[in-house]
Order: sequence, then C-alpha cells, then structure tokens
Amino acid sequence: MKIRTLEWKKDCLVIIDQTQLPLKQIYLELKDHYEVALAIKEMKIRGAPAIGVSSAYGIALAALKMQAKTIKDFEEKMEAVYILFSLTRPTAVNLFHTIERMKKVGARLKNTIEEAKAALEEEARKIEKEEDEANHLIGKYGVELIEDGFTILTHCNAGALATVDYGTALGVVRAAKEKGFKIQVYATETRPLFQGARLTAWELMKEGIPVTLITDDMAGHFMSKGSVDCIIVGADRIAANGDVANKIGTYSIAVLAKENGVPFYVAAPISTIDLSIASGEEIKIEERKAEEITEIGGKRIAPEGVKVANPAFDITPHVYVSAIITEKGVVREPYDVKIKELLGKQ
Amino acid sequence: MKIRTLEWKKDCLVIIDQTQLPLKQIYLELKDHYEVALAIKEMKIRGAPAIGVSSAYGIALAALKMQAKTIKDFEEKMEAVYILFSLTRPTAVNLFHTIERMKKVGARLKNTIEEAKAALEEEARKIEKEEDEANHLIGKYGVELIEDGFTILTHCNAGALATVDYGTALGVVRAAKEKGFKIQVYATETRPLFQGARLTAWELMKEGIPVTLITDDMAGHFMSKGSVDCIIVGADRIAANGDVANKIGTYSIAVLAKENGVPFYVAAPISTIDLSIASGEEIKIEERKAEEITEIGGKRIAPEGVKVANPAFDITPHVYVSAIITEKGVVREPYDVKIKELLGKQ
Repeated sequence: MKIRTLEWKKDCLVIIDQTQLPLKQIYLELKDHYEVALAIKEMKIRGAPAIGVSSAYGIALAALKMQAKTIKDFEEKMEAVYILFSLTRPTAVNLFHTIERMKKVGARLKNTIEEAKAALEEEARKIEKEEDEANHLIGKYGVELIEDGFTILTHCNAGALATVDYGTALGVVRAAKEKGFKIQVYATETRPLFQGARLTAWELMKEGIPVTLITDDMAGHFMSKGSVDCIIVGADRIAANGDVANKIGTYSIAVLAKENGVPFYVAAPISTIDLSIASGEEIKIEERKAEEITEIGGKRIAPEGVKVANPAFDITPHVYVSAIITEKGVVREPYDVKIKELLGKQ
Repeated sequence: MKIRTLEWKKDCLVIIDQTQLPLKQIYLELKDHYEVALAIKEMKIRGAPAIGVSSAYGIALAALKMQAKTIKDFEEKMEAVYILFSLTRPTAVNLFHTIERMKKVGARLKNTIEEAKAALEEEARKIEKEEDEANHLIGKYGVELIEDGFTILTHCNAGALATVDYGTALGVVRAAKEKGFKIQVYATETRPLFQGARLTAWELMKEGIPVTLITDDMAGHFMSKGSVDCIIVGADRIAANGDVANKIGTYSIAVLAKENGVPFYVAAPISTIDLSIASGEEIKIEERKAEEITEIGGKRIAPEGVKVANPAFDITPHVYVSAIITEKGVVREPYDVKIKELLGKQ
C-alpha cells in the first residue's frame, strides 16, 4: 500500500494523521487554513519538507476561500494568513521559505483577486512537485555514499511521511534498495513522540526493508559494537556554516558517530538551508509541552508536578557532519564555502 | 515519607513494587524464595545493590523454610536455591557475590541444619547492613567531587530504591544536600523502563531536591549548552580494568560527557567490582523482551511484528570514567592498578 502523506483536493488538503500511526490509518480532510495550521502545530503532519508543502497548500486554501472586495482587501487578509502559519512551528525553516515564496507570487504583483488566487495555488503545486523531485535526487546522490550490505542508523522520521512521498534520509535508503543493495536499518524510537517507533519502523516494514527498532539510548551501544556502517538523518534547518538543527537527540548520535568512526550524513533539500543565519547558535529551538514526556497515550508515567524540559530539536555543529546530501549534490567541509557554491551564491 | 525499598520480616521479605511507582505505592510480602526470585526477574526490585540484598534474604527465606532430614539433604536442596537466584539477572555482579557469600556460610561448615539456617539469616542481615554503610561512605567520599551550585545529571535510578536506603549515585546527591549545597539534578527518563522518570524523579522530589526530567536523547543537548557540571551514575558490574556495565545509555552519556569536558563519575560499592574479569568485553549483557519497547502500560506504540533489540545494559570503557566512587574511597586511572590497591589485592 502506497503511503499518502498529503493530497491536494482544491477544496481541502487531505493528510494522514501521523499522531495515530501505526495503530490507526486515519485520513483527515482539512477544510480551511486554520485546520491546516492546527494540524501542523499538533504534529498530525510533521517533518520539515512536509510542513513546507502543507503550509503552502494551507495558504492556497486560505486564498481560494477568501472573501475580498478589492485586491488590497485580499492582500491584507492574506497577511494574517502568513502570520498564522509563521506561528505554527518555529524551527523548520522550510515553513518560512514557503511563506516567503507564497508572498512573492501573491497579490501584490497581480491585477485581480482571481489571478492572485490562481497564482498561489499554482505555486503550492510547484512547491510540492519540487520537493518530490528533490527527494529523488537526494536519493540518487546519497546512494553513492552507501555500499551493499550496509546497516544504516536513522533517528526520527525523515521518510515519505516527513516529505511528500519518498523521503530524505529514507529516500537514500529507498534508493539503495532500488539499486539492489541488501541494506538494513536501525530506527531509534525517538522520544518523546516516538516518530521512529511509530513512523519510520512502519514505513520501512511496508517497503520490505529490514528494520530493527531500538530506544534512543541504545544508538551509541550499537555503534560501539561495530554494528552501524553509517548514520543518515534529516534536518529542520541548516545554517550557512553547516550546523544542523534536527530532532532532539541528533547531536548525541553525531558525537557518538564521530567517536566510533561512523560517517554521519544529513539528507535535506536546499529549502532547509538558511543562509541568513551564520551558525546553529542563532536557530530558535521549539520548547514543547511537558505532557509529551510525562504522559504516554494519556497514561501518566512520571510523578505529578515534576519539572520537565522538552526542547524539540538540538544543534549538531558542522564538525560532526561528514556530508550533507542535497538535490544539487553532496557537500562536505568547508561547509561555509561549499554550501554557498552549491546554491550558486559566492 | 521514608522510602522503604525492602524490609526483612523473618517469615517474608517486604518490598515496594517498583514497577508500580510512582502512580501506586504497593508493598509486596514475598513469602518464599520463588517469589523473591520472580520479583528480581520482573524488576519489582532492581538496582545492583538491592538485587544483592534481596537475593540474600531470598536465600535466607529458602533456608528458614526448608524441610530437610539431614544436613546433607539441606545442602543439596540449598544448591537448587543458589542456582535459581543465579538465573534471575545475568549482568549485576552483586547477585553472584551474594550467592558466593551465602554459600560460604552455608551448610558445609555447620554441624546442624538449625545452625546453618541461623548463619544464613545472619549473613543476609550483615549484607544489608554493609550495603547501607557502604552507601553512606560513598556519599561521604563522593561529595568531595561536588561543588555548591552544581547541576548533576544522572541516568536510570541509583538511589534509595536501587539499594537499601540511601543510594549510590543519589547517595552522593543526598550527601551534597546534607552538606548544605544547593544542587539540582537532571534525571534522564531511561527507556525502556523509565526508571529515571518513575523512580529517580519521585525519590528526589520526596527529598526536596530540585529535579528536571528529560528524555534520554536530551542529555547531550544539555551538556553542549553548558548546563551540566558533572554526571554521576551507578554500576551493575565493574571489570578489573575499570570498564563499567550499567543501564543501557550510560555509554552514550559518558562519550558525550568526555566530548563536552564534563566529569563522568561512577558511584558503586566494591561488591560491584568483579576482579575475575579483565575487561568489560567479557560481561554478559542481558537481553530483555521486545514488549518493553513496543508497548507502554499495555498500550502498543510500534507496528505489530517489528524486530526489536533490547539490551538492558551497555559497557562504558574506563577511558571515559573520570573516577569511581566506592565506600573505600575514590579511584582514578590507572584503574587496573588502583582498583586492586583499593581492594587490598596487589
């Protein structure tokens, strides 16, 4: 069965509710942009590229359903939509790139409201198509780093569910399988929200790729045993110097990889790169609610009233990153130079 | 309220059921040695020192209730008891040290069955008393490594619940508090069984020591932020060269500590040291059932049929260990020499 992360239906955006996987496969029809924004915030749809694409469709949905008398009225109402989406998740930059792109094709350059609406919908479709193509190119470039027989460790879910269809980190895994390589994957469960246990394990089992589920605190153990040939993870934002913001726990895995001589790769579309920030220190880390840690499935596990810290992401300094795999090719140190070259900006 | 990990009642061993904490405080009366052995296997009582003491009382309980006609008959029946306890948990060496000690004072050197029974009960009481004294001495020596204002990160539970009363790693924390130091603790939740979230957080909150609960994959993040002054963990077995077997995830924390220049301390009684093994590579790692990872509180989180790896412990090579805190003092590199000196064995 094909996994459908999201599907544009013109009058709604259909998504699979990722908070219910793998126990229930529930598709939700998001009928307006408020529902799309809430689904992003509640992580019913998640993963930097999928957040980018779904916010584009959320904006398109707002535009198509917008009641406006004049183009100026339309413009002003759309401003509120852009602000709404910018407040959903602070760390993944794809969201902000999307909002900027949508703004650019939006009302200001158009003569009529209908023209602006059509342009916004078309841009959202274009963003989806580009993300999908980018994934396959990431797979194509990334597979050059993989050898037949490799055991790959991944964290969180940078698969079809995090993107449109193919995946970034898991796109490379899929490409390796398509090449006929016998590969296997260690999936870390990824606390607090279990994206590895719930999504990555599920996706890979559907794909027939051997996967072993482990808890996050086992990753180092298996590296030290020599059981892991390389790490591939996704990214939520990459700074100009190559520092990577990704799901909490990524930094720990990167340090352990370096200590054990295991290559650590980041697979991400160039929409994840944020040249406006020099280093990872400037990236805002989303802090999420305590209940994600103290309760599981509505059942409390920690004492009432315990203080909790719950940063959703961490920063992996570029010195731990062996290579970044993008749809334009693979970059390595010195990242500050190579990333700009890759983007055609000297 | 005082936490009672275990209490000897002559006709039974009373323990607090640690699998039910912190939601329920249920005390269990273990009425024969089978019940004690099962409670250890099912981790109703856990932590290397507590396993040692409870197995001693389990053996004493078996002896006291033993129906035997001759001293030879008693001896043979006790052999089966020793074997039963040796099969409960393979990694913590305190268990095996206890069994050896109990065997030595057992039947072979006694004239009557009654004399043997009394000697075994007395030895169990002695083991409990020694462990308790050891904890307080560990606290006394360990606190010398702590400064006022320190934030200490610990993994799993090496507290009162893992011992008799005071704790090893948390014994040092308690000693620091008793000294008037303002300290705070990061407790990692410790997947899969949440000993950090369920036991350490609960114990420290009862003690009025500020504690922040985090997931295991956040430990590195907070070290990289400079938020952690030192790590203190317990141990399940320490090899002659200083390699440490402890709860899965300990190795990862040790590597991250070294990378971030954070001291990594192991607090353990000398009953945890196993001079019979040269290095950690020889330590048998217990593999536990998949459901500990795929289900939480009876609720499934991972896909049906997913392959799981579940090692309960990992090995931290001594190069990552800044010091080992014991009741005989603090040892540092070179561990192979210093540990033997500590034990008075050149």
